[in-house]
Amino acid sequence: MIRFQEALHEHYAQLLTVERVVHRSRTRFQEVLVFENAVFGKVLVLDGVIQLTERDNHIYHEMLAHVPLVAHGAARDVLIVGGGDGGALKEVLKHPVRSVVLAELDGEVIELARRHLPGVSDGAFEDPRVEVVIGDAARFVAETAGEFDVVLVDSTDPLGPGEVLFSEPFYRNCRRRMRPGGLIAVQSGAPFFQPLELEMVCRRLTACFGAARPYLAPVPTYAGGSLALVAAGAAPEALCPGPEALHAGFSALAGRTRYYTPEVHGAAFVLPPMFGAPDGLSGRR
Amino acid sequence: MIRFQEALHEHYAQLLTVERVVHRSRTRFQEVLVFENAVFGKVLVLDGVIQLTERDNHIYHEMLAHVPLVAHGAARDVLIVGGGDGGALKEVLKHPVRSVVLAELDGEVIELARRHLPGVSDGAFEDPRVEVVIGDAARFVAETAGEFDVVLVDSTDPLGPGEVLFSEPFYRNCRRRMRPGGLIAVQSGAPFFQPLELEMVCRRLTACFGAARPYLAPVPTYAGGSLALVAAGAAPEALCPGPEALHAGFSALAGRTRYYTPEVHGAAFVLPPMFGAPDGLSGRR
Repeated sequence: MIRFQEALHEHYAQLLTVERVVHRSRTRFQEVLVFENAVFGKVLVLDGVIQLTERDNHIYHEMLAHVPLVAHGAARDVLIVGGGDGGALKEVLKHPVRSVVLAELDGEVIELARRHLPGVSDGAFEDPRVEVVIGDAARFVAETAGEFDVVLVDSTDPLGPGEVLFSEPFYRNCRRRMRPGGLIAVQSGAPFFQPLELEMVCRRLTACFGAARPYLAPVPTYAGGSLALVAAGAAPEALCPGPEALHAGFSALAGRTRYYTPEVHGAAFVLPPMFGAPDGLSGRR
Repeated sequence: MIRFQEALHEHYAQLLTVERVVHRSRTRFQEVLVFENAVFGKVLVLDGVIQLTERDNHIYHEMLAHVPLVAHGAARDVLIVGGGDGGALKEVLKHPVRSVVLAELDGEVIELARRHLPGVSDGAFEDPRVEVVIGDAARFVAETAGEFDVVLVDSTDPLGPGEVLFSEPFYRNCRRRMRPGGLIAVQSGAPFFQPLELEMVCRRLTACFGAARPYLAPVPTYAGGSLALVAAGAAPEALCPGPEALHAGFSALAGRTRYYTPEVHGAAFVLPPMFGAPDGLSGRR
């Protein structure tokens, strides 16, 4: 029996049995491994860290995309930073948006995900509303003249190529390309293992946008209980509006999600004292 | 480097580094291992399955105990089935209860946990309100003349000695020993890996009590994202009352919990479509 052991945390690891190695290569930027597991289906691994599996990636992608999009309620133009697997893209396209730019550093990841994990993007890259930009997303955000209503930062962890996507200059450039009322959502690690990452992201987003609020999503293959994401915008109440606004924004999605609902949106912003400030409004204790 | 590999799921395992083996023995009922891990502190393992760790057990114990106790609001007499480590007992005793009976099959587990993981029970076994019954909890519930307001089923998984604690005859006997308005809470596995266990527990509790509602708690060392628990009683609204009632029941606990709050209580009952019925009222789709 072959087993894959994740190399992410120092004293804890996930071990998945490997039914079949589907693909293994080194791109210009990272090691790519795709293998099949009997429980999780195909698993995409970059530099030894699980990025997604067929069976549970929808939890992460739905919560990354629908929380800011439903909260915004009328997003026309969306930017996805990273997200080369196309999973967040697929979710964004369920909304009546006009355009989506996907800025991904590693074009080979897009090709490999489309070939080996086609269900994750499910044809999203063929949608005429989508423009793919291969290259440094931080540079793209600094130089583009485009304007966006929602930005999703679907990055790897803040090590290696993903590090710049957690920096204040990057967040400031995102803010500059955003229309009034714009919202950003950022994945920020498992707070049980990486509490400083969540604290740092909240602090920097608050400084650059005005208000930031963490929210939680329990993705089985992101070990540590809950994954934290952070939503930011000009005012905290815009990030988790009341049930009426959430249900209005959800109307285009009803029946098309397996994890996200307006009720899940509200519940995800409830942080236990161990992870967040009791009022949950910005940053952590 | 010594590593402990959990033997619970077939194609997925947790791997924890072992700084030090603290204890290893076989009781009349099961294999016991206590070891120290650099992230999780001391870890208690029964028959190869992680039962708790020093660092994250409070998430589970707070959600098992405080959800039914706060929802009840005036529990005087409490029964804990299993729970020999004393973690649930410690949480119950934070409420102004009159008596707690802890019925545990394996008395050696109580002794070993008190010796090697004293912080988990934190003196709870010395509290004069506590009575410990060593023996078959199912038989105890069938034969006792005691009456209870809240019952907590803090069992292992439904394999081996824990199996009877998931049976309808056991639930019916719990119901029989319960005062009007009584509530029960049951741990029922990780729904991502064990969806049938949650379905079965919901169905049986609904049949025996009238209403059952699942709720979720993301405990890092219970792999699979969220752990499911099920609360049951005569009416569904009693399990997750409104904010005012929750805040009243929480008054004795304020500042003494690290995971549970009235807001977390409400949020835990919000199930995503993939795990539960959209109205969340009883059982799963």
